This record gives sequence, C-alpha cells and structure tokens, in this order.
Amino acid sequence: MQEIKIQIYLCPTMATDQNKFQAIISHCKEYGFIFQSSEVYDGLSAVYDYGQYGSELKKNVKDLWWKSMTQMHDNIVGIDAAIFMHPTTWKASGHVDGFSDPMIDNKDSKKRYRVDHLIEGFAANLPTAEAEALISKMEKLEAANDLVGLKQLIDENKITCSVSKTANWTDIRQFNLMFATQLGSVAEEANEIYLRPETAQGIFVNFLNVQKTGRMKIPFGIAQIGKAFRNEIVARQFIFRMREFEQMEMQFFVRPGTEMEWYNFWKEERLKWHKSIGINPGKLRFHDHTKLAFYANAALDIEYEFPFGFKELEGIHSRTNHDLSRHQEFSGKKMQYFDPEINQNYIPYVVETSVGLDRTILMLLSEAYEEQDLSTPEKQDSRVVLKFPAKVAPIKLAIFPLTKKDGLPEIAREIQEQCKPLFRCFYEEKDAIGRRYRRQDAIGTPFCITVDHQTKEDGTVTIRYRDTMEQERVGVDQLIQIVTKEINK
Amino acid sequence: MQEIKIQIYLCPTMATDQNKFQAIISHCKEYGFIFQSSEVYDGLSAVYDYGQYGSELKKNVKDLWWKSMTQMHDNIVGIDAAIFMHPTTWKASGHVDGFSDPMIDNKDSKKRYRVDHLIEGFAANLPTAEAEALISKMEKLEAANDLVGLKQLIDENKITCSVSKTANWTDIRQFNLMFATQLGSVAEEANEIYLRPETAQGIFVNFLNVQKTGRMKIPFGIAQIGKAFRNEIVARQFIFRMREFEQMEMQFFVRPGTEMEWYNFWKEERLKWHKSIGINPGKLRFHDHTKLAFYANAALDIEYEFPFGFKELEGIHSRTNHDLSRHQEFSGKKMQYFDPEINQNYIPYVVETSVGLDRTILMLLSEAYEEQDLSTPEKQDSRVVLKFPAKVAPIKLAIFPLTKKDGLPEIAREIQEQCKPLFRCFYEEKDAIGRRYRRQDAIGTPFCITVDHQTKEDGTVTIRYRDTMEQERVGVDQLIQIVTKEINK
Repeated sequence: MQEIKIQIYLCPTMATDQNKFQAIISHCKEYGFIFQSSEVYDGLSAVYDYGQYGSELKKNVKDLWWKSMTQMHDNIVGIDAAIFMHPTTWKASGHVDGFSDPMIDNKDSKKRYRVDHLIEGFAANLPTAEAEALISKMEKLEAANDLVGLKQLIDENKITCSVSKTANWTDIRQFNLMFATQLGSVAEEANEIYLRPETAQGIFVNFLNVQKTGRMKIPFGIAQIGKAFRNEIVARQFIFRMREFEQMEMQFFVRPGTEMEWYNFWKEERLKWHKSIGINPGKLRFHDHTKLAFYANAALDIEYEFPFGFKELEGIHSRTNHDLSRHQEFSGKKMQYFDPEINQNYIPYVVETSVGLDRTILMLLSEAYEEQDLSTPEKQDSRVVLKFPAKVAPIKLAIFPLTKKDGLPEIAREIQEQCKPLFRCFYEEKDAIGRRYRRQDAIGTPFCITVDHQTKEDGTVTIRYRDTMEQERVGVDQLIQIVTKEINK
Repeated sequence: MQEIKIQIYLCPTMATDQNKFQAIISHCKEYGFIFQSSEVYDGLSAVYDYGQYGSELKKNVKDLWWKSMTQMHDNIVGIDAAIFMHPTTWKASGHVDGFSDPMIDNKDSKKRYRVDHLIEGFAANLPTAEAEALISKMEKLEAANDLVGLKQLIDENKITCSVSKTANWTDIRQFNLMFATQLGSVAEEANEIYLRPETAQGIFVNFLNVQKTGRMKIPFGIAQIGKAFRNEIVARQFIFRMREFEQMEMQFFVRPGTEMEWYNFWKEERLKWHKSIGINPGKLRFHDHTKLAFYANAALDIEYEFPFGFKELEGIHSRTNHDLSRHQEFSGKKMQYFDPEINQNYIPYVVETSVGLDRTILMLLSEAYEEQDLSTPEKQDSRVVLKFPAKVAPIKLAIFPLTKKDGLPEIAREIQEQCKPLFRCFYEEKDAIGRRYRRQDAIGTPFCITVDHQTKEDGTVTIRYRDTMEQERVGVDQLIQIVTKEINK
C-alpha cells in the first residue's frame, strides 16, 4: 500500500517551474496527449483520458516495463488480475479498516475538510515557531489515531471554515478512500465490493496459484500492470494524483533472511530502469522512509524532480510476510512454500516494487519538454520539442513528400508501406516542410524524412534529426537501420 | 452498445463438446492461464484473473489487434480513456434509461428472476407448439416494453418459483446493468457515477478532441482497448460472459452516404484478422441482425463456433450519426466535421467494430486445445497440446540442457541470454526431456531446443516442433531465424 504524503513545496524557482508545469499541461491537451475525462460534459475531477499520442506513449512505457520484468527475468512472470476482488481481500489487507482519512464538516457551510489540511491551512498563517508546534502536535495525534484530540486541537485554536467563517464543527470521522459498488442482482447474493485501491493484492491472493501451476522456485516474482482507484479527497497536480490511475507492480517472493539483499538489488535495478528510459540521473533520488509500517523492515521511494519538486515516483518496500500471512489468516489457506534447498516450509517474505504508470508518463513529459529559442539575427524563431528517447516516442518516423505532385507522394507512400510493419509511421503532405517538422517536434517524433526530386534519381531521402535538427541524405535501407537501432537502444 | 442475446443451444455433439469445454476450463486453471478471481476467498462470481500464461496470451492478442488497427492504418489512432466518465455520458448513450432487464421477485423465496428466463424455463416443459406460442407472446410484450402484460403472462400461466413452488410474485421492475459508485468525498460534490458498460462512449466523447488535435480527415478511426463492466444477471460460460471484461473497439467516422461501403470493408477486414490469428475459417461466420436498433442501418455479428455453439465474438454496426448527435444534444457542443472536399459541415456517421477480448482468448483456447492419442503397439501415450500460432503463444522457445552437468546448463544459459531480448524464452533443467516437452505442449510453446554433448562440439542444438513433434539439428543463428520468422508470420 503506497502511503499518501502531503509535502509543502517551497522552492526559489517555483514560479518558473510552475509555468513549465502549466505549459506541459496545455501542450498535452493541444497535441493530443492527455485530455480531461468527459471534457464535453465539463470534465470529471481528477480523471484523465490519454489521447492519440498519450496512449501510444503509455503503451510504449508499459511494454518496456513488462519486457524488462518478465521477458528479461526468467524467474518473474506476469498476471492480469481483475479489478473486482472478493471483499474479504480488503479486510485482510487492512484497507477496510485503515485506508481512510479523518474528515470534519462545518455545520453552517456544509463544507467537508480533511482534518490535516484544515489545520495545516490555519498553521500557514501563524509565526513559524507556533506553526511548527501546532503541526507537531497534530502529527502526534494523527499517529495515535486520536480523533477526539484532533477535534480539541481545532477547537482550542478556534480554527474556522473559510466559507462560513464559523467554528461550528461536527465530530471528526474516518472517510474510506475505496470506491464501493454492488455486485450481483439477485437480492440475497448482492455484495458490496470495492474497486481495488492497489494492484498488489491481486498478486498476493494468486501467490499459490502461480507458484504451483508455474512450478516457481523461490526467489521469484509476479508482475502486474493495471488500474487502481482511490477516492482522493484532494486529487490534483494533473495526472500525478488521480482517482483512477495505473500501477506497474512486481512482488518478489524470497526466503526470510534474504530480503535485504533483494531489497538492495531491486532498489538499484529500478533506478537503472528509469535511467534506461532517458531520465537524467541528477533528477532521480532515493528517499528512505523514516517511519515504517509496523510490518515492514525497509522502505524507500524513488523520487523524481517534477516541475513541482521532488516527489514519489516508485516505492520499494520490504514487506516481510505480512501480506501473505494476513491472507492465510483470513482465508484459512496455507500460504506456504516448501523450500527444497533448506528442507523447510515457510511463508515467503516479499520485496515490492510499485511504480505509478501515470507518474512515469508525467516524468517523461517533464523531462522531454523544452521550449527553444531558435532566433537568428535575421529572424525570430522558436520551437517546442519533446525530446523523448526513440523507444518511448509515440511516432518513430514521419514521412513527407516535398510537394504533392511529380509522383513524390507515391514514392513516400511506398516507403511508408515498407516501414509501417516495423515501427509506427506518420504521413503528411500538407503545408511547408518547416511547419511539418515543427508539428513532429511538438509530439516528439525522433526522425522525419523528406522525399524530393533527387529521391526519384538516386532513391535517397533527407533524414532530419529532431534534437539536433541536422539533416543528411540516406538510402531507405540505411534509414530503416537508423530508426530500428535507435528504437532498440 | 452490444445487445445481450440468449440463444438456446441444441446440437447433437453437445455432450462431447461440453466435455471439451470443461476440459479447457480445467486446463486453463491447471496450467496457469485463467483462475477464478479471489479463489482463496472462494471466488467472485463471473470474474476471472489471467495467470502467468493467460496474461501473456492476452497481451499478445492486444498487441496484434492494436498494431493491425493503429500502426497499419495511418488514418486510425488509438486512445485510452478512463473507466470513470461523467454520468451524463450514460444519459446520452441511453444506458441510464435503457440498459436494463425486467426482473421479478418471488415474495416467498425472496428469489429474483430475469423475466425472460423465468418464462423460457417454464416453456421448456411445454409441448413445442404451446412453448412457441408462449415465447412469441413474450417477445411481443418485451418489444413493447409492456411490463404489466408480462406480469399477466406469468400469472395466466401460473408460473411458479422453483424454490418456493408458489406464484406469489412482486411486480416486474427494470434492473439496470451498470455498476454505480460515488465519486468525491466532499458531501455537496459527491456524484453517483457508473463504471463504463462499454468502451465506445470514451471514443465518442473524445471525437472532437482527437479530430482537432490530430488534424484527422474523414474517413478516420479511433481505436481503444479497455475494461468494461456489466452487472449481468446470468453471467456464465467461463470467460464468455463476465461481469468485468475487456473490449477492443474501433469507431470509424465517415461521410454520410458512404457508410455501407465502409461497413462492408470492415466486415471483411475483421474476418481476415480472425483468420490471421490462426482461426479455422470454417468456424467463423457472419450473422446479420434481423432486428436493428432504431438508429442503425446495418448490423452483424462475427460468430465463432465455440464448444457450446456458434456465438457472438464481434459486432460490426453501422450506427449512423446517432451517438455523436446524442452527445451534441446532451452537451450542447457541436459534434460536427467540416469536410473540405464537399465544403460541408456534418455530424459524421460511424461504423463500429467491437470485439470481446476475453471471447477472443476463449476462441484461441478452443481452437488450439487438442487431446492426442500417441499410443504405439508397445506403449500407451497421449498428450494435451495447445496449437497456438507462434505469434500468440505465451512462450516462444523453451531451452533445455539434456542433463544438469557437463557444462550443458551453462551453454543453454548462454543461448537464453542471446534469445531473450528477442522473444520470450523459458528455461528448465529438471526431469526427463520427454516430460519437459509435454509441459511445453500443454502451454502451447511452438519450439523447444535441447542442448546436448554434440552442442559442445559443433554448436548445434536439437529443435523440436510442437505440432509435428519432429526434431532436427540447427545452429543457434538458424534457430533465431526460425523462431523470429514464425512469430512475425
């Protein structure tokens, strides 16, 4: 279970980066990467749709992760478990009782607040020392789950609602973040079930199935990509915190006592993976958790420096045998593994790697987005370019006939036919070449080629490189080699 | 919107095929293709999880469909819209008012029935002529949505509950098949929303976004793969009818008047695609709809002969401008396209192709599953083999050292290192070669190789072909060529 943390972000370059963040959001909409869900109906809060380029970018990232986990490790297999799970799953996982935020309602305005946000908002207007004292008190009460104490803190400080300006509060109640629905139509069999708030439990409840039918030997992993749902009180920052989101998780089952070795292994492996998709190492860092869940013996986040600061991208957790033990307890089924090497039965320990797919996309967009001033003394010019590594770019090659006549479109179409089974191409014959290049820059296409009159003579085309904007003449075979090599890098 | 049809299946070979169907279901569980969801908690009705081989099979099918739609057609782009949509979407689509089944409760047993099932069950015990008359009456009342008339029909025939044996019925009510949940925590903004019952509307509400930002020219298509959810009253037949399922849909937007041409085009294209994934053409057929939805001007199903008979696999529908018009009406946004070729604005017509991904998987399993008697006069023998085309097979190549010693595992591991970036491999060194072959047959691996002592001398390995069980010696380069060629076929 990923923890939800609120960080106060203070940074001298905030204004600039905030502008960059806003520019990325606008760019995503303008160029078909990400739209607000149901935009024609004025949108749905904290839910987003991936457009024609966003969906390709996302698919490329999923494919790379899946390959790196399953195809490249013969002791890791994938599964694809349903979003609907038996409700007891969430009793066992602790989500029914523990996955909630304390909330309070103002009786006059009828407005509901998350208690920590209400207190933090009030503290922001206090002198630093007083603010810190208040926050520290609040954190102690939160840790003790002392709802009465938290209510007293609000009363003592005479904290008021920003709408009604009154301190006429209800008691504090826990609000569960899981979405519930009813399964089954026949009255007596109707069950309240939940949309999974994380994909991990789909792996744990299938541990025995996969281990037995796949004859898996410890250490081994089970990987999964899929949707999860959380009714976040404060969902914000574009696709960083959504109510419907996608996770890429791998649970690695190990012999008790070896978990720290694997924890360190996966921590480094996952960092390498982020670098392998083109992320600047200087923008990635480990953040060790200081407060561990009671069952965990190590936990850290891989953080990326988003335009709004360093934030969690992925969690690496050494979870001991907590999850499997809980399912054993609630299901009555033995979640054990017989280890032939040491001739012992045990409940395996688990090292989890859990990365937000949407956050990975936001990282790639943040990393790739660049506004460049290309002005010369003669002419003002600029471009927006998304410098995606070729392997994640939505379109790999754009194919342009220089003009719409003289048989150039036909030659360009022939090249397209040759290339399109190999990688995703884009064909366009409208507008000046320069404008066509700019549009491809804006969606991150690494290579463009132009078919011109010389092509008719010697079969060569002009290839233009996105990042350097350099151009050279190449044959079609060479072109395919250049693109293929870069995609597979 | 796919219609839900109930067909009575009568076939002389039913017993045998029913056995085959049961055998496939058991095989799927035993070999890690498909598990019942939350099986450790005794399962969740009509929800399934894909295991280690099922998830790879499913991913391969998704990738093939996605490539055939988007990469191979430069006028088709993909999107990945959220499962959560604005609730007005389902008002506009007709699902809030029309996506329901008439249900009736017995007051004594508290058991709830779908009205058509109750009447059909009763009719099954009548003489043929009477049964037909009753069903025909029922169908007329259903078509007229006459719930009072249907209730009278139940009363007149003194139809009783199979549990309580009484005819003490409630009135008939409509039961909506959409799953509802609450979005948002702040009381006044909480909205009842639905889990999408089909992926199509995610495409329609994004029509303007994609057309404008992608500069799409009609005719063009938008493709999407994703989960959909229906609270089916009678969900059954394994993964054929699930409450959580996955669709692969492509909506093709055309100029009004050209829709029949495109309808015929896509009908043939889609049939070709099913053949391209190895389906016997004799088991596929078109089934024209005799009753069309009021807005549609043509509709058919592509049916496959499952072990339980010919059933719908995919729907091809010519939907006119119904969907976009409804969203225009409910959103107040113009869903129009300006067609520069004829200088006119219009709401495009839509030709839909909508295939069930899980049904495609069930088709592939049904097609591939074979129990073979391999007995010789000397020895009884048999095998179960899944004859998947290489491109959909979960594992492409299994690599076996003949023995665990003499450096053979090391050589086998080297070959694995060379092959695994190219396609999914499986390594195993335990048990006799014959048993290892059988296990790969059972999961549909097209190629196995054995590394033996001769490999140390001349670098060749024995390749064994799944379908023919023939073996030959090849070099490693040749091996890679054989596998790659077959995957890309």
